[in-house]
Amino acid sequence: MPILELSPGDQTVTVSGDTPLLDVYAALPAGLYPPFPPVELPGGVGGLVSRGGFGQNFFFAAEILGLTFISPSGRRIVAGGRTVKNVQGYDLTRPFVGSFGALGTAETVTLRLRPGLSMRHVASPGTLETLPGAARFVWQDGPSIHQMHFGPAREVDRALSGVFGGTEVTGSVDLRHFFPEGVGVGTGGHLRDLRMNRLGQSWINGGEVPPVPALFARLAANL
Amino acid sequence: MPILELSPGDQTVTVSGDTPLLDVYAALPAGLYPPFPPVELPGGVGGLVSRGGFGQNFFFAAEILGLTFISPSGRRIVAGGRTVKNVQGYDLTRPFVGSFGALGTAETVTLRLRPGLSMRHVASPGTLETLPGAARFVWQDGPSIHQMHFGPAREVDRALSGVFGGTEVTGSVDLRHFFPEGVGVGTGGHLRDLRMNRLGQSWINGGEVPPVPALFARLAANL
Repeated sequence: MPILELSPGDQTVTVSGDTPLLDVYAALPAGLYPPFPPVELPGGVGGLVSRGGFGQNFFFAAEILGLTFISPSGRRIVAGGRTVKNVQGYDLTRPFVGSFGALGTAETVTLRLRPGLSMRHVASPGTLETLPGAARFVWQDGPSIHQMHFGPAREVDRALSGVFGGTEVTGSVDLRHFFPEGVGVGTGGHLRDLRMNRLGQSWINGGEVPPVPALFARLAANL
Repeated sequence: MPILELSPGDQTVTVSGDTPLLDVYAALPAGLYPPFPPVELPGGVGGLVSRGGFGQNFFFAAEILGLTFISPSGRRIVAGGRTVKNVQGYDLTRPFVGSFGALGTAETVTLRLRPGLSMRHVASPGTLETLPGAARFVWQDGPSIHQMHFGPAREVDRALSGVFGGTEVTGSVDLRHFFPEGVGVGTGGHLRDLRMNRLGQSWINGGEVPPVPALFARLAANL
């Protein structure tokens, strides 16, 4: 039972780390969105959190309200919560998000849900080299270029306002075939993320992860 | 120069840790709010962040976009940032918020700003014992009870909807005289915070801080 607790009133959902991303979509009432687009990726929600998100145009870590994870030494660590009620911090949620496994593996994740997010996905003939566009995600699949943007409706409209022609793709997409050996960060990948473009990087097949800063290696060794 | 960088477009402001809370209000354009009410407290913004906020009715840690702090061993640590652009995490912002000094002292803090927040503050004759009310903050000052609520307008209306009579207090308030020896958490204080009420606690004069969990004592010792 991967959906552990759904609270539409509080706009939160708690899921097990191995929950597929599209299972989260399937469990939500209409009009309430998780902090990722309807795309399936390897590793489910836990993998997504470990990689610092995918396809969002907001501060992803702030949408992760809490999680439990198993540390490198095997401890179960409870980080964060679902309410504004705690004064005291000591919350390891944010260091964990985007830690690419260095701090351990997510066991359960509590996501903030938002109303009224929007997604646009257009496929058109072409290659990555000829692409204009301000869409957050672009990828090549055979002879087609896919452009996808997810977020507040106005921002989505703006990001894809220069796209004419092509086919509007509705519904969810499974991108796992790009990543048979897992999702990593590197150069020359099929899937470009505007966040990484300035570094010449993209999401690539394989487990290549960014280097761990010394401070966090010390932290990980003490968890 | 305690206001280091104000970006109304990005809705962020970066200040030095010792910036008085009301100096932040004075620096902002009309209609843009920091994540705290217009109240002065000891320790300025750095003290507020260290104590996990004051008077807010939202998840305070998510409003702190980044900070630099001096760790117990004297290292300067950069935590978080101001943008959605980073994939990689390893962000110590959230553990620091509400750590009551255990992880060190804030040097600079970047706050998220929000439009359209609201505050209502009513003073009426009475004592804490006779108070109904769902206001987040209540305190006794001489023969008067003060009730204050800060947040989205509808929530403020609801929280003080049972308050009739009394004097509407507009403008900022200096509460530092309650805390000549610093702000702590304990029992029997003058200033009740609904977040702590269930534990029978309130904000008190003096430096009493909640106990540090063992995990964070280890973390602090390694920073």
